[in-house]
Amino acid sequence: MTKDIFQVYPLIDKKKKGQKLTHNEIKWFIQNYTDKKIEDYQMSAMLMAMFIKGMDPAETAALTDAMLESGKQLKFSGSNVIDKHSTGGIGDKASFILAPIASAAGVKVPMIAGRGLGHTGGTVDKIEAIKGFKTSLDLAEFEKRLNKDGLVLIGQTPEIAPADRLIYALRDVTATIDSIPLITASIMSKKLAEGANGIVFDIKTGTGAFMRTTKDARNLGKSLITTSKRFKKKAVALITDMNQPLGNSVGHSNELIESIETLKGRGPKDLTDLSLALAAHMIHLAGIEKTYDKAFKKAQLMVSSGKALDEFKKLIKAQGGNENVIEDYSILPMAKDVTLVTAPKNGFIKMFKNDQIGLLLIDLGGGRKTKSDMIDHGVGFEFKKKIGDKVKKGETIFEIHHHANQKEIAENIKSTFLKEVLTLSATKVKTPKLIIEKIS
Amino acid sequence: MTKDIFQVYPLIDKKKKGQKLTHNEIKWFIQNYTDKKIEDYQMSAMLMAMFIKGMDPAETAALTDAMLESGKQLKFSGSNVIDKHSTGGIGDKASFILAPIASAAGVKVPMIAGRGLGHTGGTVDKIEAIKGFKTSLDLAEFEKRLNKDGLVLIGQTPEIAPADRLIYALRDVTATIDSIPLITASIMSKKLAEGANGIVFDIKTGTGAFMRTTKDARNLGKSLITTSKRFKKKAVALITDMNQPLGNSVGHSNELIESIETLKGRGPKDLTDLSLALAAHMIHLAGIEKTYDKAFKKAQLMVSSGKALDEFKKLIKAQGGNENVIEDYSILPMAKDVTLVTAPKNGFIKMFKNDQIGLLLIDLGGGRKTKSDMIDHGVGFEFKKKIGDKVKKGETIFEIHHHANQKEIAENIKSTFLKEVLTLSATKVKTPKLIIEKIS
Repeated sequence: MTKDIFQVYPLIDKKKKGQKLTHNEIKWFIQNYTDKKIEDYQMSAMLMAMFIKGMDPAETAALTDAMLESGKQLKFSGSNVIDKHSTGGIGDKASFILAPIASAAGVKVPMIAGRGLGHTGGTVDKIEAIKGFKTSLDLAEFEKRLNKDGLVLIGQTPEIAPADRLIYALRDVTATIDSIPLITASIMSKKLAEGANGIVFDIKTGTGAFMRTTKDARNLGKSLITTSKRFKKKAVALITDMNQPLGNSVGHSNELIESIETLKGRGPKDLTDLSLALAAHMIHLAGIEKTYDKAFKKAQLMVSSGKALDEFKKLIKAQGGNENVIEDYSILPMAKDVTLVTAPKNGFIKMFKNDQIGLLLIDLGGGRKTKSDMIDHGVGFEFKKKIGDKVKKGETIFEIHHHANQKEIAENIKSTFLKEVLTLSATKVKTPKLIIEKIS
Repeated sequence: MTKDIFQVYPLIDKKKKGQKLTHNEIKWFIQNYTDKKIEDYQMSAMLMAMFIKGMDPAETAALTDAMLESGKQLKFSGSNVIDKHSTGGIGDKASFILAPIASAAGVKVPMIAGRGLGHTGGTVDKIEAIKGFKTSLDLAEFEKRLNKDGLVLIGQTPEIAPADRLIYALRDVTATIDSIPLITASIMSKKLAEGANGIVFDIKTGTGAFMRTTKDARNLGKSLITTSKRFKKKAVALITDMNQPLGNSVGHSNELIESIETLKGRGPKDLTDLSLALAAHMIHLAGIEKTYDKAFKKAQLMVSSGKALDEFKKLIKAQGGNENVIEDYSILPMAKDVTLVTAPKNGFIKMFKNDQIGLLLIDLGGGRKTKSDMIDHGVGFEFKKKIGDKVKKGETIFEIHHHANQKEIAENIKSTFLKEVLTLSATKVKTPKLIIEKIS
C-alpha cells in the first residue's frame, strides 16, 4: 500500500542528518526491507544512523509498530492478561516462580521466552531440563492453552515479528545492538504480538547485565514504559541488581530445582523477594488487587498456600513434561562431581565479574557458543556466598558441578574464578540493593 | 599479512563510539573488504559511523593509503609532474585549457579524468566529442605517453584504487557520499596512484557544486591539502564560484569549441582567468617559476604565443583524434536547431539554479541518467548573459541547441529555465567573485 511513496536514499540521508522520520517513512522502510526490496547494506547504514543519531519516542513506536505488523498478532480480551519481560542476566529464573504465582492469583500469563546466547541463560533452555516439556507450540496452540489454563510458556516462534528477527541478525554483526530505541522496538514488537494487556519489565543492571549502569537501565526502562503507553498497555519497570547471580544456582537443572524450592517457600532471599515483587506488580496491573501492597500479600499467600506450586505442576503436565519433578528432583539430569572453590583468605565478598560466570558455564557445556550448540542441562554452579558475606579462609564460596571427565575444565574454572571473577575485601562490604528503583 | 589481527565487530563498535581507528585497523578493514571477507552490510555500517562521527587527518590518510594500495600505483621521478583535480561543476572545461598551458610551460600533466553522472559533466565525455580520441588507455600506455609527450588524458582505469570503486558504489546507495574525509580519501587515493608529485585542487562552491557553501568547500580544501602533505605531495587549492556555469557553453562539442577559443585567446573572461590561475599554480608547484606572478605571466605567454594551442593539438593527434578540429569546428557533432530564451522583463541577472542546468541537459540527451546511457555530444546550452549582467526585455539570455525532433523538449526546458532556473532582480547585482580564496 505504502510501497512506492518513498525512496531509500533520502530516508537514510534524513536520519543521518539527525532529522526525525515519520511513522509512514519508518513503516515503508521496514516493510520493504522485510520484503527484500531494500538491501541489507542499506538497512545496516540506516540502523547505524538510527543508532548514532537516536530515535525519539514517536520514531521508536513507529519502528515497534512496523516490526509488530510484519508478523502475526494475538489479541486477548480481559485486562488480566499480563506478561513479564526480563532483559536477562545470570541465574535469572524468576519466570518459573512469578508466573505460577500470578497465575494462581488470577492473572493470565502468556509467556514467549528466549534461549540463552552469549553469557546469559535462557528460560526456554532451563525448562527443557524437564524431559518432554514442549516449548515449540505454534501461536494457535499457544492461544488455546492460555485461554484454557491461564498460563503458557513457549519459545520464540517465527510467526511473530519476522522483521525483528531479520533486523536483530543484522544488528548482531554490525555493532548496532546496544541502542535503547532499537532494543525497545525489538522487545516491544514481540511483547505486543503476544497479546498481553500489561507488561512488567525487569531491567537488570550491573556486571552480568546488558545495561551496565543504572543510568542506561533507567533510560531503557523509561523507553519501554513510554512505548507501552503509546500502545495503550499498562506497564511498570523495576531496575534490579545484576552484579551477582539471582539466587544461588546457575545452570539448568539446578536453577529449576531452586525455582521449585522457592515456590515451596524455601528459596534464597533475593530470588524470593524479586519474584514476589514482580508477581505482585502483575497482579496489581491486572487489577486483581487495588494496591501494590495488597497484591504483594496475595503473591505471598499464593506461595504459602501451595497454590503457585500447583500451577507450576499443572503447567509442566499440560506441556508434556513429567510433573513428578516437583517432588523428585532426581528426574532431572545432574552432573555428579563437585569441585569446590574455597576462600584463599579471610574477608568479605566484594565483587563477582558476573558476565564471566555465564561464559565459564559455556566452558562446561552449559551454554551455547553458537546457535546450533546443544546444552548440557546437568552442569552448573552453586554460590555458597554472595556479595557482602563474610568468609573465612578455606570456607567454600563456589561449587562447580561437572561430569567425571570434566575434572580439568573444572580446575581451569576454579583458577579463573579465583583470579578474575572473585574480589575479596579486607573490610566490610554492603549487600547491594536488589530492587534499585521502580519506573511506571 | 595483517589479515587476522582484528575483528570486524569491535572496529565498527569503536568508530560508532567516536573513537579513532589506527592506521593498521583501517588498512585491515579496507583490505578485507576488497578481498570480500567483510560483507557490504558491515562496510556500510562502518561508512555511516565514519560519516557521522568523522575521521581525523591521520584516519583520513590511513583510509587514503588503504585504498591507494588496493590497486596499481605509478611513480614518476622529477618534481614537474603535476596534476589538477576539480570537484566538478557546470560548464567546467578548464582542464582542456590549463593542461596544454602547463604542458607548454614544461609541466608534465598526467590526467585521469571522470565521466559525467548526475548534474555535472565529465571531462572524458567532452573530449570524446572528437571522434577517435581514445580515453581508455591502460596504465602502462598512460605512463609511456606521459614520459614521451608530457601530457596525457585518459578515463578512470580499473587498475587504480579498486577499493575506492567498491566503496564509492556502496556510498552512492547508502547516503554516505557527502563526507569530507570520505571524499578526501576517494580523490586522494586516485590522484596519488597517478604518480603526480604535486596537485592543484579546484574546489567548486555554489548552486552547481557538491559543496554548496564556502565553509564546506574550505573544509574539503583543507582536508585535501593536509592529506597531500602527509603523502609528501606539493598542493594548493582554489575555492572557486560555481553559482553559474564556468564560461558560456554547457554541453560537449560546444564546450570543446569554447576551450579551443580560449586557447586562442578569445575565451570568456571567467574561463580564461580561472584556467590561467590554475595553470599558473601548476607551473609554480612544478618549480618552473619561482613566484606565482611569474608563473601566471608564463601561462599568459603560452596562450599568446600559440604554444598551448599546439600542445592541445598534439594531444588530440597522439590519442587518435582528428587534430583538424582546432581549425575546423564543423568536424564536431552539432545540433542544428536553436530555441532562444529571452528576458521576460528588464532587470539584472541575479541567480541561476545551476545544478538544474545540468539536469536539463540530461533531458536533451547531453548527460546520463544511468551509467550505461549514451551521450549526445551535439546538444547543449549557450549563456548569453551571466550573473550581474543588465538585460532588456526580449534580449536573449540563454540558447538551447537541439535536434529538429526535440522542439517540444526544448520548449519545456525554456519554460523551466524561466520559471525555476533564472532569477531577475530589478536592482543592480554584483558579479560574483570567481576565485574566492586560496588554501596552501
